[in-house]
Amino acid sequence: MKKKATIGIDLGGTKIAFGLITSDGEILEKKIIPTESSKGVDYIKQNIVTNVNEFLKEKNISISGIGIGVAGQVDLNGQIIFLPNLNWKNIPLKRDLEESLHLPVAITNDVRAAAWGEWLFGGGKGSHNMVLIFVGTGIGSGIVIDGKMINGATNTFGEIGHMTIDIEGSLCTCGNTGCWETLASGWGIAAKTKREVEKNPKDAKKLLERVQNKIDHITTKKIIELAKDGDPYCQKIVKEMAHALGVGMVNIVNTFNPEKVILGGGIIAGRPEFINEIKDLVRQRALPLPSSKVEFIRAKIEEDAGMVGAAAYALQLFNKKAHEPPVIL
Amino acid sequence: MKKKATIGIDLGGTKIAFGLITSDGEILEKKIIPTESSKGVDYIKQNIVTNVNEFLKEKNISISGIGIGVAGQVDLNGQIIFLPNLNWKNIPLKRDLEESLHLPVAITNDVRAAAWGEWLFGGGKGSHNMVLIFVGTGIGSGIVIDGKMINGATNTFGEIGHMTIDIEGSLCTCGNTGCWETLASGWGIAAKTKREVEKNPKDAKKLLERVQNKIDHITTKKIIELAKDGDPYCQKIVKEMAHALGVGMVNIVNTFNPEKVILGGGIIAGRPEFINEIKDLVRQRALPLPSSKVEFIRAKIEEDAGMVGAAAYALQLFNKKAHEPPVIL
Repeated sequence: MKKKATIGIDLGGTKIAFGLITSDGEILEKKIIPTESSKGVDYIKQNIVTNVNEFLKEKNISISGIGIGVAGQVDLNGQIIFLPNLNWKNIPLKRDLEESLHLPVAITNDVRAAAWGEWLFGGGKGSHNMVLIFVGTGIGSGIVIDGKMINGATNTFGEIGHMTIDIEGSLCTCGNTGCWETLASGWGIAAKTKREVEKNPKDAKKLLERVQNKIDHITTKKIIELAKDGDPYCQKIVKEMAHALGVGMVNIVNTFNPEKVILGGGIIAGRPEFINEIKDLVRQRALPLPSSKVEFIRAKIEEDAGMVGAAAYALQLFNKKAHEPPVIL
Repeated sequence: MKKKATIGIDLGGTKIAFGLITSDGEILEKKIIPTESSKGVDYIKQNIVTNVNEFLKEKNISISGIGIGVAGQVDLNGQIIFLPNLNWKNIPLKRDLEESLHLPVAITNDVRAAAWGEWLFGGGKGSHNMVLIFVGTGIGSGIVIDGKMINGATNTFGEIGHMTIDIEGSLCTCGNTGCWETLASGWGIAAKTKREVEKNPKDAKKLLERVQNKIDHITTKKIIELAKDGDPYCQKIVKEMAHALGVGMVNIVNTFNPEKVILGGGIIAGRPEFINEIKDLVRQRALPLPSSKVEFIRAKIEEDAGMVGAAAYALQLFNKKAHEPPVIL
């Protein structure tokens, strides 16, 4: 009996997750190691090679290829353009790993990978027009149009976190101002709150207690937790965040006219109530036709989204029978 | 000698343009009649039938079909959903005209039609990822992704005029607030200026003179003309409009990652300087990768865009050899 599978790798700033994934999305095995980003590119590459080889050893499985999801920009040749977390620039990761591993390697953005996972195995199965949006530190997307995952002219299609929704807004990490991320992402809400707390510390008593008066320790996670505990200051921030999430989502519905929007990422996982609040605002504000057709769904593959998604990406690239169950030989 | 052609019709609120268009976009003949919208649906339908029949009479041309562009929403079956100019709702225009004309009829939104025209015959020829944007009374688009004109789940893909760019903005005709149209379209700038002039009439001396103190007569066209003549009040409005156009265009580049953006419509035709101003803002503010690849081009088919575009739409639907020159039999 030889099963068919791909290896999915989620290469993050703090950890690397490896998974052996069947062609129907089942996780056969999983391993997580620390990234040790300070040790540099070559060390991390060697670590990936060693772990993949160990993964393959003594397993009665036929591997069609390896998929890697990274938190940053990749070109269509599997060259890393920029990974902010690791500070990697212009690294030919696909070429190097293929040379060492003698297996085909496919690399994509981690949220794009997650979209592959949800499209092949999750809540987006079978959709022709699907937008997956992950709200975490930033806001990323993977977009299926007319039954095809879209890359765009420079493989950066769907950088929706950097869509201005506030023409008078504050500076974004991208250099533009008023981007959706400044008002609705993990980093954006933390940055905005820090600025406000600095100006009016006495309004933020509970929040300051929670971070022992260290404004720098304010995170969106802590704000959401305090809001849940009933702190009115944090509840107001969360309410504004829900509004900003909804405003951006109206833009997504009006411009991309999807049949399904899949919502995931750390912020949505931490407060799934955002989904209904977003849905309500879309019903009120989006154009009647696109709004009448769109469905909002929570991502089904949460924790392992990058890993399973990277495997899904490799699967459709290296194995055309992607929707078939694993072959038992 | 029998040429092959399609008939393109631009059905507008004040006039209907008919064109006999070859399969390489040449206008063989053109006729314009008043719409006489007050006379109702049946009258206008009969007028279209009569004029198409006259057009065909005694002509040695083989017609593969008829394309119609309309300023409003259509479904993929050629049913009119809503035409605000004519106040038409749920009219089975395709079915009715096919019954009368015994020719295949294809109906699409007029800006989507213009995108077909520019894609097959104009500045977008051969592009795989193209966004056409017409800035006139409103802001509309037609979007080609991966070599395909995109319709979306409800045939309303690319309603970019109703993308919020100002979360604190004013009410839009669509019921949402802060849409791109409120800050950068013909109706939006006129409405915004009227509100401002009402509040502070003495700042707007020249503009009020131009409309003989009738605030209701303020149009964006007049504002642009006065700005050209050196009026600082109108120059400030035009400058803000250029900025808002650019901010929305950064969103287009970041989200749709096109290789070409084709700009047209009455506002762009009236002040083509907007194109360079938009380009400058995109270079400054859009993400480096998508910004490095995108080209901004002025629409090549201006006045006849709807008519030629509707013919192009019919051409690709009814004649698969769309890119071939007309056949001389």
